[in-house]
Amino acid sequence: MEFAKLKSDIDLWFKEYFNEKGSYNKKIYDAMYYSLEIGGKRVRPLLLCYTYNMYKEEYKDVMSVACAIEMIHTYSLIHDDLPCMDNDDLRRGHPTNHKVFGDAIAVLAGDGLLNEAMSVMFDFCKNKGKNEVLACKIISDSAGPEGMIGGQVVDILSEGQKISYETLCYMHKKKTGALIKASILSGAVLGNANKEDIDKLSDFGEKLGLAFQIKDDILDVIGDESLIGKNTNSDADNNKTTFITTFGLDECKNKCKNLTKDCLNILASMDRDTSMLEEITKFLLYREV
Amino acid sequence: MEFAKLKSDIDLWFKEYFNEKGSYNKKIYDAMYYSLEIGGKRVRPLLLCYTYNMYKEEYKDVMSVACAIEMIHTYSLIHDDLPCMDNDDLRRGHPTNHKVFGDAIAVLAGDGLLNEAMSVMFDFCKNKGKNEVLACKIISDSAGPEGMIGGQVVDILSEGQKISYETLCYMHKKKTGALIKASILSGAVLGNANKEDIDKLSDFGEKLGLAFQIKDDILDVIGDESLIGKNTNSDADNNKTTFITTFGLDECKNKCKNLTKDCLNILASMDRDTSMLEEITKFLLYREV
Repeated sequence: MEFAKLKSDIDLWFKEYFNEKGSYNKKIYDAMYYSLEIGGKRVRPLLLCYTYNMYKEEYKDVMSVACAIEMIHTYSLIHDDLPCMDNDDLRRGHPTNHKVFGDAIAVLAGDGLLNEAMSVMFDFCKNKGKNEVLACKIISDSAGPEGMIGGQVVDILSEGQKISYETLCYMHKKKTGALIKASILSGAVLGNANKEDIDKLSDFGEKLGLAFQIKDDILDVIGDESLIGKNTNSDADNNKTTFITTFGLDECKNKCKNLTKDCLNILASMDRDTSMLEEITKFLLYREV
Repeated sequence: MEFAKLKSDIDLWFKEYFNEKGSYNKKIYDAMYYSLEIGGKRVRPLLLCYTYNMYKEEYKDVMSVACAIEMIHTYSLIHDDLPCMDNDDLRRGHPTNHKVFGDAIAVLAGDGLLNEAMSVMFDFCKNKGKNEVLACKIISDSAGPEGMIGGQVVDILSEGQKISYETLCYMHKKKTGALIKASILSGAVLGNANKEDIDKLSDFGEKLGLAFQIKDDILDVIGDESLIGKNTNSDADNNKTTFITTFGLDECKNKCKNLTKDCLNILASMDRDTSMLEEITKFLLYREV
């Protein structure tokens, strides 16, 4: 299953899910769908589906959980962009949610996406077994204070001050890494992977998440603003400690290359068809946007 | 089990849950716990536990779910109080979350409480059955765009304009009513109540939620600010349509009285020990704060 086809299945799931939702509250669905619909690479649902596909054929069986992760990711972007947070006007080449709907609705649209993601997952768990609940718990935990939110809070608290390498690593491991790793792990758990595979995929997920963030930092410096669809150099403008400010551009490129190699080696060591995970790893870490 | 004892068990659960949580991210737990700890009547967890107790003895078995509901309620208050929403400085007699921790952390503290509530519920569902997942789904749905968030968005959109009685009812049924009803229904489902009981408790929950909101509107006009712990007349100041602006104070008092009677009649018609639900109904609807 190639990227484009799976991505369009994901987009279609959202379209159908949000189609004709709402009455008096229609505005909230409009705002929620707006940020889902303006794009994104759908990295997290792709990772979940491809990992699941290493063990089970029918990715559509886990599509709703995959899309729930994307909803969680999207809510975090909406809240990150708020004036009281990063105050960004542009996301994926479009005005950010609060620029279109106002700050109050943007807060609620983020809340709505997080909540809806959880409802989708509880719905998924109905009449299912242990593994399904465990997979959803992995996702939920990864998004919370010990995961994504925890990283974001450290990011906020660190603004305008120099932070240690340890704090920087903690921040990224949580802020970006946790949900990426959870996408992979939950796919494996849903596929009923054995312990050895789960350990390997856990290691893969952690390294991929870190490499992904370093790549993001690199692109923030050298990327093409019109391609990336958001303001570049925003980290420097916000006076943030990043991998770039800590190691310099060249060392970051090096780190990214080595982590990519590590990721591919882990996959190569596995006794399953990891071709799609390899492909997405290369796509993510060699990307220009 | 009297109110005070159960309430103190709930408070203790939070205290132990948040005790020593966090490392680099400690601030987020501080902010989350701050808003939980400054009080509140714990209406929703009380309702869940007392409904559960109609069927099963050991309310501690469902304590985590009861507390998850309170976390959801508390997150909604933090976000409601934000400058871009109702812009309130005072809640339960204490500075609001953003007044203490700043807007960015307050947004994240709200996100964190919502997320943590869901994690607590997924954890609860591990190694359990259908009913547990269903109960958590009822709670999750009631908090989302078809429930509490849906009501909140209508509230925001209606500010400064006259809204119809239908819209007002929709708004309150969702904004306050949904989570109250869900507290009762999830308690019943967890207790394995039969269909007839669930229908009655559903009706009870809906009426109680509505009465509770009307009572809130009444107290906003006639209540003692120092007792309530937030600014009164805030609805009028915000130019909001309320039950009071629609029906006037006397008619609202009447409605509240009649709904209370309805609630008590439903409970009286049930074949179970409903004494604690009766007591909490009277407590909520005869309260002065």
